Amino acid sequence: MSKKVVSLGEILLRLSPSNYQRIVNSKSFEINYGGAEMNVAANLSILGINSVAVTKVPDNEIGEAALSNLKSHGVNTSYIPKGGERIGTYYLETGYSIRNSKVIYDRKDSSFAKSHISEYDVEKILEGADLFHVSGITLAISPLAFEIAETFMKKAHEMGIKVSFDFNYRSKLWSLEEASIKIKRILPYVNVAFAGYLDFINILGFKSETCYEEDILKCYEELYPKVLEKYNFEYIASSIRKTVSASKNIYKGLVYDGKSINISKEYEIEIIDRVGSGDAFTTGFLYSYLMGKSSEYIVQFATASAAIKHTIHGDTNIINKSDIENLFEKDSFDVSR
Amino acid sequence: MSKKVVSLGEILLRLSPSNYQRIVNSKSFEINYGGAEMNVAANLSILGINSVAVTKVPDNEIGEAALSNLKSHGVNTSYIPKGGERIGTYYLETGYSIRNSKVIYDRKDSSFAKSHISEYDVEKILEGADLFHVSGITLAISPLAFEIAETFMKKAHEMGIKVSFDFNYRSKLWSLEEASIKIKRILPYVNVAFAGYLDFINILGFKSETCYEEDILKCYEELYPKVLEKYNFEYIASSIRKTVSASKNIYKGLVYDGKSINISKEYEIEIIDRVGSGDAFTTGFLYSYLMGKSSEYIVQFATASAAIKHTIHGDTNIINKSDIENLFEKDSFDVSR
Amino acid sequence: MSKKVVSLGEILLRLSPSNYQRIVNSKSFEINYGGAEMNVAANLSILGINSVAVTKVPDNEIGEAALSNLKSHGVNTSYIPKGGERIGTYYLETGYSIRNSKVIYDRKDSSFAKSHISEYDVEKILEGADLFHVSGITLAISPLAFEIAETFMKKAHEMGIKVSFDFNYRSKLWSLEEASIKIKRILPYVNVAFAGYLDFINILGFKSETCYEEDILKCYEELYPKVLEKYNFEYIASSIRKTVSASKNIYKGLVYDGKSINISKEYEIEIIDRVGSGDAFTTGFLYSYLMGKSSEYIVQFATASAAIKHTIHGDTNIINKSDIENLFEKDSFDVSR
Amino acid sequence: MSKKVVSLGEILLRLSPSNYQRIVNSKSFEINYGGAEMNVAANLSILGINSVAVTKVPDNEIGEAALSNLKSHGVNTSYIPKGGERIGTYYLETGYSIRNSKVIYDRKDSSFAKSHISEYDVEKILEGADLFHVSGITLAISPLAFEIAETFMKKAHEMGIKVSFDFNYRSKLWSLEEASIKIKRILPYVNVAFAGYLDFINILGFKSETCYEEDILKCYEELYPKVLEKYNFEYIASSIRKTVSASKNIYKGLVYDGKSINISKEYEIEIIDRVGSGDAFTTGFLYSYLMGKSSEYIVQFATASAAIKHTIHGDTNIINKSDIENLFEKDSFDVSR
Amino acid sequence: MSKKVVSLGEILLRLSPSNYQRIVNSKSFEINYGGAEMNVAANLSILGINSVAVTKVPDNEIGEAALSNLKSHGVNTSYIPKGGERIGTYYLETGYSIRNSKVIYDRKDSSFAKSHISEYDVEKILEGADLFHVSGITLAISPLAFEIAETFMKKAHEMGIKVSFDFNYRSKLWSLEEASIKIKRILPYVNVAFAGYLDFINILGFKSETCYEEDILKCYEELYPKVLEKYNFEYIASSIRKTVSASKNIYKGLVYDGKSINISKEYEIEIIDRVGSGDAFTTGFLYSYLMGKSSEYIVQFATASAAIKHTIHGDTNIINKSDIENLFEKDSFDVSR
Amino acid sequence: MSKKVVSLGEILLRLSPSNYQRIVNSKSFEINYGGAEMNVAANLSILGINSVAVTKVPDNEIGEAALSNLKSHGVNTSYIPKGGERIGTYYLETGYSIRNSKVIYDRKDSSFAKSHISEYDVEKILEGADLFHVSGITLAISPLAFEIAETFMKKAHEMGIKVSFDFNYRSKLWSLEEASIKIKRILPYVNVAFAGYLDFINILGFKSETCYEEDILKCYEELYPKVLEKYNFEYIASSIRKTVSASKNIYKGLVYDGKSINISKEYEIEIIDRVGSGDAFTTGFLYSYLMGKSSEYIVQFATASAAIKHTIHGDTNIINKSDIENLFEKDSFDVSR
Repeated sequence: MSKKVVSLGEILLRLSPSNYQRIVNSKSFEINYGGAEMNVAANLSILGINSVAVTKVPDNEIGEAALSNLKSHGVNTSYIPKGGERIGTYYLETGYSIRNSKVIYDRKDSSFAKSHISEYDVEKILEGADLFHVSGITLAISPLAFEIAETFMKKAHEMGIKVSFDFNYRSKLWSLEEASIKIKRILPYVNVAFAGYLDFINILGFKSETCYEEDILKCYEELYPKVLEKYNFEYIASSIRKTVSASKNIYKGLVYDGKSINISKEYEIEIIDRVGSGDAFTTGFLYSYLMGKSSEYIVQFATASAAIKHTIHGDTNIINKSDIENLFEKDSFDVSR
Repeated sequence: MSKKVVSLGEILLRLSPSNYQRIVNSKSFEINYGGAEMNVAANLSILGINSVAVTKVPDNEIGEAALSNLKSHGVNTSYIPKGGERIGTYYLETGYSIRNSKVIYDRKDSSFAKSHISEYDVEKILEGADLFHVSGITLAISPLAFEIAETFMKKAHEMGIKVSFDFNYRSKLWSLEEASIKIKRILPYVNVAFAGYLDFINILGFKSETCYEEDILKCYEELYPKVLEKYNFEYIASSIRKTVSASKNIYKGLVYDGKSINISKEYEIEIIDRVGSGDAFTTGFLYSYLMGKSSEYIVQFATASAAIKHTIHGDTNIINKSDIENLFEKDSFDVSR
Repeated sequence: MSKKVVSLGEILLRLSPSNYQRIVNSKSFEINYGGAEMNVAANLSILGINSVAVTKVPDNEIGEAALSNLKSHGVNTSYIPKGGERIGTYYLETGYSIRNSKVIYDRKDSSFAKSHISEYDVEKILEGADLFHVSGITLAISPLAFEIAETFMKKAHEMGIKVSFDFNYRSKLWSLEEASIKIKRILPYVNVAFAGYLDFINILGFKSETCYEEDILKCYEELYPKVLEKYNFEYIASSIRKTVSASKNIYKGLVYDGKSINISKEYEIEIIDRVGSGDAFTTGFLYSYLMGKSSEYIVQFATASAAIKHTIHGDTNIINKSDIENLFEKDSFDVSR
Repeated sequence: MSKKVVSLGEILLRLSPSNYQRIVNSKSFEINYGGAEMNVAANLSILGINSVAVTKVPDNEIGEAALSNLKSHGVNTSYIPKGGERIGTYYLETGYSIRNSKVIYDRKDSSFAKSHISEYDVEKILEGADLFHVSGITLAISPLAFEIAETFMKKAHEMGIKVSFDFNYRSKLWSLEEASIKIKRILPYVNVAFAGYLDFINILGFKSETCYEEDILKCYEELYPKVLEKYNFEYIASSIRKTVSASKNIYKGLVYDGKSINISKEYEIEIIDRVGSGDAFTTGFLYSYLMGKSSEYIVQFATASAAIKHTIHGDTNIINKSDIENLFEKDSFDVSR
Repeated sequence: MSKKVVSLGEILLRLSPSNYQRIVNSKSFEINYGGAEMNVAANLSILGINSVAVTKVPDNEIGEAALSNLKSHGVNTSYIPKGGERIGTYYLETGYSIRNSKVIYDRKDSSFAKSHISEYDVEKILEGADLFHVSGITLAISPLAFEIAETFMKKAHEMGIKVSFDFNYRSKLWSLEEASIKIKRILPYVNVAFAGYLDFINILGFKSETCYEEDILKCYEELYPKVLEKYNFEYIASSIRKTVSASKNIYKGLVYDGKSINISKEYEIEIIDRVGSGDAFTTGFLYSYLMGKSSEYIVQFATASAAIKHTIHGDTNIINKSDIENLFEKDSFDVSR
Repeated sequence: MSKKVVSLGEILLRLSPSNYQRIVNSKSFEINYGGAEMNVAANLSILGINSVAVTKVPDNEIGEAALSNLKSHGVNTSYIPKGGERIGTYYLETGYSIRNSKVIYDRKDSSFAKSHISEYDVEKILEGADLFHVSGITLAISPLAFEIAETFMKKAHEMGIKVSFDFNYRSKLWSLEEASIKIKRILPYVNVAFAGYLDFINILGFKSETCYEEDILKCYEELYPKVLEKYNFEYIASSIRKTVSASKNIYKGLVYDGKSINISKEYEIEIIDRVGSGDAFTTGFLYSYLMGKSSEYIVQFATASAAIKHTIHGDTNIINKSDIENLFEKDSFDVSR
């Protein structure tokens, strides 16, 4: 029987000019749907997980469209209340070569950000789940959303359900101080943490002398065991990206399991759409983790999942398991026919 | 020398599926810009008026795009402050035949709705103007916007500048009671009123016994002189629409100048996009009024301007004067070549 | 708790030029998915029914795309096997005015047409269902498909589940003789029949003297009681269409319940896409029938559902219940805002 | 063996906004190719005629694209020289409802208008032809083009090849005086004339008292025998159009064969693109004339050909013979499947 | 006078999402036409060859569209019968960077695969031809197609017409064993063979010790003389590709003429569409071979032809001779203006 | 107060297939507007300069569209006369990888090329200007245009307004001899010259022994002081481009101020649209020059402005000042959010 995962967060309408056009003189926007945890929910469903999304949408055609998008990937949307005033929105202008991508957020006062914990039957939703996932964005967007997230995490923890948390720090949503206070409050419930060394230093207050030197591996070796021990995580995972240009990145992943630091194959990627690649990494990790795979496999699967996302339009990683595995197992780029 | 008109109001980003598609399964939105008074500003500029728009846009690419749209029609945008959080937005699903058009607003807390009168140098903006235009929507969207509108109207009145006001009552923005209080407060400054008999009855509290009977002309003859006398308007104007279907309407216009009720030619229109047709009527009126035309001409020009708008994509009436005149003066629908 | 309906049939990939272009010089095809029963399944799900689709798709990206489409409408696709060689396909060239629409089928040897009854766990799929739906097309496309359909109908009948059957006679798929033999074989299981008087005469062999005269109502009054009695149907329903042009039709519906012939309001429709309107009629009937509505309501809901389908792109009737009700209850075609 | 027709004239690149947009704010143009005689050449080829086009295109990618378009319809382009400076161009803004279509020409100094008779091996091109076709536009665009046309007509006449001539008077290209002189010069070679009664009066100088009265049939009966006799035509043919709006026309055709005035069925047409409908009429006439059909058939076929063209994008009448025949023989507008 | 080439094979309708989208969530397909030999036919025609295509298409709009495409490139389609049930189809998902392209075939039972040799007047079609071309795909798709191919090859051989054969081995169509038997049967008629060393080893059963070592040139030097001698070919030609990623390949070509192994310039190519590049290589070879060029020129022309194809949308190599020559003769990538 | 710049030249309608398609089989053209000096005018306005464009457009919808485009960027179009016959046009086929871009001009006899100096009130237009800009193209397109340019330059010089001149030599418009004579005639009025060393050698007749050797810097050091001295320029500026492929260039800039040769950072650019990059260089120079920046800043700003233009669709450099500065000051290509 397939594993069940519950993901909680804001769904976002994404509006972006097509074909690398600039917003200023564009005459149309392509429509996609995103939001960190909703991407994870969709991606997990595509991989065959029984994936439940928890969010809220306005009770109008825009809300219907957002739900229809989740449903098209097979996500269970039956616990999503309808109401509130609006869907969180963001505008993406995809860069190219030496011109950067730009994101403009217009997400304030969304239906989800203003929804109340009482709208969600937490226990019923979590029933039978193997894992609950949320990111720092949900903690940051509103006190109401924080309350919802904390309630779900605590309850999941009580029910023996694994909890995964992606730091996903966004300086436009909250300060490092606020993040520090709130993230520390929920970390006791977390089993798997997606975060980089800067998150540990800047948000959790760890000290390091190695992280500012050239050999970043030493930083991991010094810092990660300390973090894992203090917070009792099973896993710490993150990706490492070098932005050669707005449309070419070099990308690899890292998974620490308390025993060894596992580093994936490195990919040089020509980018179509990098938004959602972090969520694809998270998804790849969670999927292989739930399947009981080794850390070596997990880091390869998570990273290949994220790498291939860069070549797919939209926030969702519309790709199946075998295509991900082929990417890290083989090296052929011939036409499949 | 060309006449100068100042229009005040919120600019709106409009997002709509193309080609009569439904929002729910659309993959892209066409981008247009609207807002009642901004439409009037753009339309007047296209007709050759020195047209000044007063609004506020966020200081990002979306704000730039909105300004660029106004500028493309020749509108003077130099008094528009940049800042605030977001652009007011609406979604339009254009209906067809027996399926209705739908509008979903997401305009709360826009940069303009939250802007303050102190951001506008009222006297300088109005300097040399022949007319100031605003609609009931601006009065309704926020107390701050009401204050801005009232200040402009009062100052225009003091400076001897004509003031035109379109009732434009929207039940989603305010109740009849609120509208009544606020509209009555600004009517003393108004010279030209765009409103139907229901506005006079429901908002201004006039009584009528003829308006519910079959011959609507009697209603006008009874009601309009009373309204004009009480509020000291120069003109009352409105359009009369019969919706045969979502894509076929029968349309005519009416102008009352205190002496006679002038009624235009009637048009049977296959509709491409009827949003903005009311603003095109207002524009046609104001343009011919400022040119010193007769009431008979004014009603024909205003109505033809509005009628042809139904066949043009977007909120703006991208059409020149001679095409409008041809419509009510001639009757040929042959290819112009 | 919502009603459960199981629909069985071939899913079709539809390829059509956009914007009334001709196939011969078109450079792209719009993608939609159809198939008579799959349309009913999608439409019922949109109305809130727990809708289960039974079909088969190839195990490749095209099959995935077809499933994703069904899922986007909320249809339960978990009983759909993957395999076989291809998806049934049809090309649609949408006509306009005096130019007819054309359909070219390329559906032979589809995954579903060549699937075997052993691939479907009939009893489990039907468990808890309120109704099972299939059409004559499934009976016609292959002996294997006939066997599947007959098995489901018989089992549903045994389990006390209502069975609805749409004659949907297509001369390109089978002769009247074949249709007669096979349809007669499954009619004992049928509770609700969608068929016109010509189906009763040509396929079931009823005789009529009134049906070729001017007053078609007499035909119904003579013929339908005889049919109902012989086959023990609860309901006979059909639509009546007049094709003024390829893009303008006059449309009404008829429901006979053994007591009275109920005829709906008549609609004059400008057409965007009439494919799937018959299935929208079926859906409107089944939905209101399952909700326990009166024959008067059923005929209005079924017909309004079908009428509005003509204005929606694609085979699926993407419309909610209140928009359908508004159409037959009110008569306003103003913008909803 | 199929008939051979040679058509001579300028090929035009047509640029038009899609979807009824206005040129002023359009961001792209659809590409089509036209020109009165080139349309006839393409249309005849689609109907199975061995159709030879004579024109000239610039020796660059635009010229290649124009040739490729002709070839895609099967037209023989092997006698078309390449060179000169540019392709004649026109911009089309397709009107809708009460908004008129507009054509802007930019055709001066095209490769064809500046080509010389010495570039065409007239005798070889005409060898084996059954008919030569040209229109007044070619006579008007330049003295060089007039010389080419006159040479072809004279030689065709000498070789016993039928000559058809469409008056196609365009006031932007020449005055009535110039047209009169030049058209009279070539009429001795003409067998079939496409012209309306106004052409006979204004260009050829015929007098009529009946043509300004209500019953236009009397005009034909008075005027056409006189014209036919004087110029020794086999046939005079024309269409009669009423422009209800820019997108709805009423249309019928007329063919006079010296014995009777044959009038076709009348069509009420919702228009997609009426440009090229006159050329479709000409084509329908020439095709059925060359097939040896009766005047009654000819007028029906020519008119149906023209009528259906109004529903097809582009200047070319992409439709086969049986679809044209169905239009005047049957009256069904059901989906063909 | 231009050379005449006859190409025999199945025409394929190609359906592909635009702009590197995935099939699973695409809403439209771009339409192109391909098929190995039909690509060669179109490409040769573009280069000025009198190119005859022999295939079969269904007698409907899809068949018409396929013919229109061939005709647009100037291909002679007059020997193509119409009939049968369907056009062979394939879906192409174009990959990008680390995501592979995918091809899904749906070509079974196409009109051509089920056509009979009696439908083709072989001698008349070959009359005056300089070369006949076919590929292994035609041999594989059906026994009927094999019979047609063999008949044409044998007759061409008898008539002294050169025969070119592209191995084009596709494991989805036949096994190595079947291919070996059938290809060996037709090789006696072949003058020019397009094949790589693996084809010679796996299909023809040659042995090699050098081909699995690093220096592939040694393999050619050992193997090709043996093959040429045994089968009496004039030429063996093939391309050598390195797939750096799905959108970047390194590409060069090889031509063996019995005397020397000629290797072309090497190209690093950013790919728009690599489908059809093999056929562009074949075309470039055949064209320069028929023009009597040297092996050195042939290998450069064939390879440049194939290289530039990678940058052109669709299966056809829409490029003229001078652009191909410029590519291998010069090295400038400046704008031509 | 913002600086005022007057730019004089022909506006061009640009028509180009989208998405790297070839012209030959494209079905639509994207619309852009260009022309060397009009690009500078638009770019300067985007950077905040009070930018006046002087050109002429036809008095029709195409002319309106061209003006609307300039206005959308904020350019002052109030001195542009309407009339004449046509807009200058060019077709652009954007190349990719090893396939070159192509430009086809159709600009002869444009409204501007045939306009007369008497249509421009030179003194009034130049009033208050800080700089006047024109390029060699305007000198070349017609004697009338030369006269207009010379008159403006002379008058600007008299009024103490700086004059900038871009050599922009195009061999299709004039010979080196003509260019030499006419350019020498206007150089006495020029303060800032945009030209490369080949312009100085080929057009102005300077001799150099170093320019054909490997170290191009020596060429600048020898040649530029001589040119500056002779013509009394303040600045000489140019860009240096290496075309790795049609879609990858290496690009840097050079500014000589009489004291030192300043060379910018070098950019490796993946290209979306390189047309207009030279004008973007000119604009970046003029903007920073007018802002009183150092030569070091000027060369960086001009080059970054040009570099980023390569990644923006259309001829206009739609980018703001801070994005340009970021490009040469920082090196991050991360998403801005």
